[in-house]
Amino acid sequence: MRHYISDLSQHVGQKIELKGWAYNSRSSGKVKFLELRDGTGMVSCVYYRGTEPGQCNEESWNEFDKMTQESSVKVVGIVKAHPKHAGVFELGAESLQILSRAEEYPISHKEHGTDFLMDNRHLWLRSKRQVAILHVRHEIVKAIRDFFDGRGFTLTDAPIFTPSACEGTSNLFETQYFDEKAYLSQSGQLYMEATAAALGKVYCFGPTFRAEKSKTRRHLIEFWMVEPEVAFNDLYDNMELAEQFIEYIVQRVLKNQPDALKALERDTTKLAPIKGAFPRLHYDEAAIMIKKENPEFIVGDDFGAPDETIISSKFEKPVFVHHFPSAIKAFYMKEDPKEPGKSMSCDLLATEGYGEIIGGGQREESLETIKRKIKEHDLKEKDFEWFMDLRRYGSFPHAGFGLGVERAVAWICGLPHIRETIPFPRLYGRHYP
Amino acid sequence: MRHYISDLSQHVGQKIELKGWAYNSRSSGKVKFLELRDGTGMVSCVYYRGTEPGQCNEESWNEFDKMTQESSVKVVGIVKAHPKHAGVFELGAESLQILSRAEEYPISHKEHGTDFLMDNRHLWLRSKRQVAILHVRHEIVKAIRDFFDGRGFTLTDAPIFTPSACEGTSNLFETQYFDEKAYLSQSGQLYMEATAAALGKVYCFGPTFRAEKSKTRRHLIEFWMVEPEVAFNDLYDNMELAEQFIEYIVQRVLKNQPDALKALERDTTKLAPIKGAFPRLHYDEAAIMIKKENPEFIVGDDFGAPDETIISSKFEKPVFVHHFPSAIKAFYMKEDPKEPGKSMSCDLLATEGYGEIIGGGQREESLETIKRKIKEHDLKEKDFEWFMDLRRYGSFPHAGFGLGVERAVAWICGLPHIRETIPFPRLYGRHYP
Repeated sequence: MRHYISDLSQHVGQKIELKGWAYNSRSSGKVKFLELRDGTGMVSCVYYRGTEPGQCNEESWNEFDKMTQESSVKVVGIVKAHPKHAGVFELGAESLQILSRAEEYPISHKEHGTDFLMDNRHLWLRSKRQVAILHVRHEIVKAIRDFFDGRGFTLTDAPIFTPSACEGTSNLFETQYFDEKAYLSQSGQLYMEATAAALGKVYCFGPTFRAEKSKTRRHLIEFWMVEPEVAFNDLYDNMELAEQFIEYIVQRVLKNQPDALKALERDTTKLAPIKGAFPRLHYDEAAIMIKKENPEFIVGDDFGAPDETIISSKFEKPVFVHHFPSAIKAFYMKEDPKEPGKSMSCDLLATEGYGEIIGGGQREESLETIKRKIKEHDLKEKDFEWFMDLRRYGSFPHAGFGLGVERAVAWICGLPHIRETIPFPRLYGRHYP
Repeated sequence: MRHYISDLSQHVGQKIELKGWAYNSRSSGKVKFLELRDGTGMVSCVYYRGTEPGQCNEESWNEFDKMTQESSVKVVGIVKAHPKHAGVFELGAESLQILSRAEEYPISHKEHGTDFLMDNRHLWLRSKRQVAILHVRHEIVKAIRDFFDGRGFTLTDAPIFTPSACEGTSNLFETQYFDEKAYLSQSGQLYMEATAAALGKVYCFGPTFRAEKSKTRRHLIEFWMVEPEVAFNDLYDNMELAEQFIEYIVQRVLKNQPDALKALERDTTKLAPIKGAFPRLHYDEAAIMIKKENPEFIVGDDFGAPDETIISSKFEKPVFVHHFPSAIKAFYMKEDPKEPGKSMSCDLLATEGYGEIIGGGQREESLETIKRKIKEHDLKEKDFEWFMDLRRYGSFPHAGFGLGVERAVAWICGLPHIRETIPFPRLYGRHYP
């Protein structure tokens, strides 16, 4: 049986073998310390020279000094509870074998520039901080799926290759699809409207692509998005679903990933209140709020990042803004019959200035209106024949939203930049390694 | 509270409202029947004219005849247990409201040609058979994630945009990535080798792309693949992991999706034995087996589909073939030091002639060998600098595999063609709808 550092508590007093990498080591004459990592955790291996159990032989004692940072090693030793810290274990090491001696490791335990770290992303991922982020990311992805799966949703993966653009043709990646052109999906939503008619409650969860020539701390070229869609839901059902969803994710990370959040020095008192009903602002209310602090804001426009911060700074919970002007929303968004010119849309702004993490709303169900909107948005009707079929054959009220996973990871981890939220970030001008 | 057909057992005797689509309807003078679907199931709504509870008024009685196939409707009625069949419920309907009357539905309950159904995939998905397949697909995806998550693996999503090709440049989709070229990923494996060094046990699970100009029943242009990678695993650990994995998936579908398998008329006696250790054949043994029945097979070559069938037809469990010739495997596959010319690779062939569903093996850990192989395979060393770093800084034995999700769905559902295994299949010459 293979042993891992995460399981040490079950093996106190036993002699076990660990394989991993030398994260750090130091020597103080009579005793040598190896901080070993194996991907599941970190453990101090303590080398005393001697012949008693838990002491190491001459050969391993000498081998120790040949070990470089990030060398892969095999260590045998006796598991001991830390004399002072409960829940911490160390290894009374009896042997050390260097499996592969590392060349001089480019990433030291000092500070490095961002470009350098990004060039070495494949190695940077080994650091404690990056490992903690990836654990939180994994927990968030799992929480997302568990939330929907536990509520009777069916996963219906959307295609990546699409014949057309659902939000216009700008920022699209194009590829030759045999004899035709194809575009990489920016959203699976239109497809979810089709599967919602088949399965009632559905979601897709996959990578999406935007060819944005901008370098900001909130944009990735390639990012993962989860998009639920529910038949017979309206705008208000949709906001209720979204707030339950965000509460579930945040509280699960708090519960299951305390060590990772601690490693990231996340102020969890900011996350604990993310529960229950979230405040809801009509676009007009939000616009007044912004205008007070940013007189240059034009009512009717979409919010910029600083505008979002003006709103979100007033609340300790995420806040919904709903009823954005139809003119700044996608063609498929339903106009509110009670408020001409306003769409039944909703965005959710995260706390602490993290801005929009969810966008969604109720969809237009009238065939005539959809046809008109397609024309107004300069889209090709032919590309949307199948989408219009959903209005021809048993049209139904429905609503849904999209959550950008990386923005949620950045927010929950408290990261200043989105580039660390995904193992191999794709940014404007970067797709290596 | 919204009610769904899947929850009817909890509401026997109660009056509830259901929203959904008219799957089928018929009238026999004194009584009218609506087969209603809402995405969670199907229920018979029985309309008797009258004023008693569970009977319908004149208006709904007349409305019934205006209803067309796939019209969206709202039905109110009293839930009743079926008089003869345990676990089956029906609705004593009191009202019917047509929310949106469907135009003449193109897909009748008769047979249609494949091209027609594929053109109408967005509607075809509403059929009982397609819904059953999507339920099994969802269960498989969930089982895959639960298997790895329950065993301490960390999800580390691989990028889709890659600067290079890991298995050569043929069959690659290319796109303009700002000022450079990028290719759509055919496999996340190389990236998993990097994250395995950070996290020990990892997997990625996302769409992958192959621009194959072929129409077969086993190939999609865009398909989902799960790729686990484990630090310090060898070929034999890898086969053990793969067989536990396949057993887990198959048994979970059998346990949780009996209704879907029944709807698909799947012979589950063929799936029940998929447990425990799977037979393992050395490539040389497999080659002899094939040669006996297909004299044209050349020893040293890869297997064709008919060759795989020759092998798999001899076993009631999936069968591993390992130690394929290095010459026909990717550059990163480790050559067995005990068997020059043979790689430490393994493929898993599914039962019933479904062919390869898993490919994997142990990876080469020597920097010198990797360099030589990159040259031999005509790949650009520059593109693989980061990959070689994994051999420079603490190289480690490791192994992993990839499972094509759609092939697994086709096999477990018993489908003749892979096109029905994914909501919106991308095939040679097809990326609509």
